[in-house]
Amino acid sequence: MRVLGVDPGLTRCGVGVVEGVAGRPLTMRGVGVVRTPADAELGPRLVAIERGIEQWLDEHRPEFVAVERVFSQHNVRTVMGTAQASAVAMLCAARRGIPVALHTPSEVKAAVTGSGRADKAQVGAMVTRLLRLDAPPKPADAADALALAICHIWRAPAKNRLQQAVQQQAALQASKGRSA
Amino acid sequence: MRVLGVDPGLTRCGVGVVEGVAGRPLTMRGVGVVRTPADAELGPRLVAIERGIEQWLDEHRPEFVAVERVFSQHNVRTVMGTAQASAVAMLCAARRGIPVALHTPSEVKAAVTGSGRADKAQVGAMVTRLLRLDAPPKPADAADALALAICHIWRAPAKNRLQQAVQQQAALQASKGRSA
Repeated sequence: MRVLGVDPGLTRCGVGVVEGVAGRPLTMRGVGVVRTPADAELGPRLVAIERGIEQWLDEHRPEFVAVERVFSQHNVRTVMGTAQASAVAMLCAARRGIPVALHTPSEVKAAVTGSGRADKAQVGAMVTRLLRLDAPPKPADAADALALAICHIWRAPAKNRLQQAVQQQAALQASKGRSA
Repeated sequence: MRVLGVDPGLTRCGVGVVEGVAGRPLTMRGVGVVRTPADAELGPRLVAIERGIEQWLDEHRPEFVAVERVFSQHNVRTVMGTAQASAVAMLCAARRGIPVALHTPSEVKAAVTGSGRADKAQVGAMVTRLLRLDAPPKPADAADALALAICHIWRAPAKNRLQQAVQQQAALQASKGRSA
């Protein structure tokens, strides 16, 4: 199973690709950050994020995309940008019929460290160990994207298969709609 | 000046096209709602909104897109969906180099009724009068989209010209980036 994890953000959107199955050693296929300038207009920033995500999808052909679920109890301004960046990532995946899964930050932390309240350093350390890397990926957004992908591989494989079937059906109907 | 107004939402995304200039009678070119089923997955819903917005852009070729600015002090669940739908609308416009303007609900109400705290019925009544329609557009999301377009035509024409120049430059650089 190849999963693209996306830690959404307008200024830094973390992306990481992990391959493997639950119960076996995992392999990192790529990690990076899609950046957009904070002083640019919102529209062109969303276009730049779309282009970045499309490149990652083209290059790595993931079977699943795992995106961090956005909550609005945090900083209002940041949360809006995060929701908008996550919408672009979900749109890019869904257009290709790739199933999108959302995982909360605490689900991701619990999956890779055993605690839903682990800090960034702990998540970075476990990602480094689980993927047998030489050092924690920087910035933290990149490490978080890998943690999301690992979380997705480890959580409910049966649920993934069901969701994949449902979304492929939806994509099929969408493409029928387009050609009609 | 032809403006597409977008009142963003996942379940009902209001769209309306108004043509005219400040100080002259305005003309409605089209009004409608892009709907997505509330029980569908988020990814395919965003794809359906993208397809709907693209059709409106193809058909009406607006010079500006005016989108309601989303705030997060309202219902948390609704606001996330609204932010995501607005991101798709902004993305569609910016990809074509069409300048996107954001107006707050109170700016829109003040523009068409004279009061930033006007209710839906009052906004609907003024949209009907200003566009010389036989009846208020239904649902309210459609009327709000027309009000957004009217608000944009009436607010700061000089600001629009500046923004258009900036965004066309950004689109030019974006297309250079793609072909590089």
